Amino acid sequence: MRLSVTTHRKREVIDLTPLLSEQLPSGNGVLHIFTQHTQAAVALADLDPGTDVDLLDALDNLIPKLQWRHPHNPSHTPDHLLASLTGPSLGVPFEQEQFLLGTWQRIILIEFDGPRDRQIILTPLPGLAK
Amino acid sequence: MRLSVTTHRKREVIDLTPLLSEQLPSGNGVLHIFTQHTQAAVALADLDPGTDVDLLDALDNLIPKLQWRHPHNPSHTPDHLLASLTGPSLGVPFEQEQFLLGTWQRIILIEFDGPRDRQIILTPLPGLAK
Amino acid sequence: MRLSVTTHRKREVIDLTPLLSEQLPSGNGVLHIFTQHTQAAVALADLDPGTDVDLLDALDNLIPKLQWRHPHNPSHTPDHLLASLTGPSLGVPFEQEQFLLGTWQRIILIEFDGPRDRQIILTPLPGLAK
Repeated sequence: MRLSVTTHRKREVIDLTPLLSEQLPSGNGVLHIFTQHTQAAVALADLDPGTDVDLLDALDNLIPKLQWRHPHNPSHTPDHLLASLTGPSLGVPFEQEQFLLGTWQRIILIEFDGPRDRQIILTPLPGLAK
Repeated sequence: MRLSVTTHRKREVIDLTPLLSEQLPSGNGVLHIFTQHTQAAVALADLDPGTDVDLLDALDNLIPKLQWRHPHNPSHTPDHLLASLTGPSLGVPFEQEQFLLGTWQRIILIEFDGPRDRQIILTPLPGLAK
Repeated sequence: MRLSVTTHRKREVIDLTPLLSEQLPSGNGVLHIFTQHTQAAVALADLDPGTDVDLLDALDNLIPKLQWRHPHNPSHTPDHLLASLTGPSLGVPFEQEQFLLGTWQRIILIEFDGPRDRQIILTPLPGLAK
């Protein structure tokens, strides 16, 4: 299953939870979520007002300030590095068409070089029948 | 399958390997391990005496010292950030009721804001039959 | 399925994409990729000339310079920490014997303490039949 999500800023956190919840099949298993980009990531986060900016600020400050070799555009290197480090994929368990998320857990897309249309591949993996 | 694990300190590394090994079904596949919290993470690590504290120290020093916006309690922001960065989930392959771990690999829960009871969802995913 | 990959330097990025592509079964699902080591990791990255060294440099500079407790060899602590942080496993969706990767996405092994032979466990997880 493929979804497209439009981002609006250079860096942005988008809550995917409502959109992905609609795609859950019956049965139980794990929804595998994968974004097809090297400047975006999928993660879980606590989302309260301002925490999205906290996350983006922290990530920005995480990457050391070095001379980059990236041939196309060295200024994009931190975007690629953060995508590799945070990771493009995540598995979230579900049961009876509902995610088994904790109270504060939200599934997020992190955009590192928007605005863009970002492609997401969803693969429901069935749990072992008992 | 759901497990509850009690943590005992503000920050702590708990070896989940023995507990999870008991839950493995027959057949082959991947055990998906997911913690339902925004201040805890699941990872793999080498565990020797002191390496748990090394890991906690390194993570502590990884997060930049910034002014956080988090509305409830800004001092919790690094806990949330480290949980998002380290990640709440992991898949570990198994075969015949045994994890296919390397000699030094241990499956760990990282507590970032204990002591608490932490919920873990286990989903065995069957590998493709040959 | 097990593969062995030989690395050639202390730190190195190896593109696994061609090797893993040959192992894809028919049908659709997610290939779970797992390395059995505490000083190596699996990730996705944009690979252009020089970007592998950018990634290794950034990771090197990410880890704070602290006094480590690791009993065997404290100088190995950053290798272990980077492996835990980057992570030993990854799921990548496939369809009809092809990865559903974005144009620039490559599946990489990151070696933190080579040269060595690194073992990789591949588990194809079937997607839910519609």
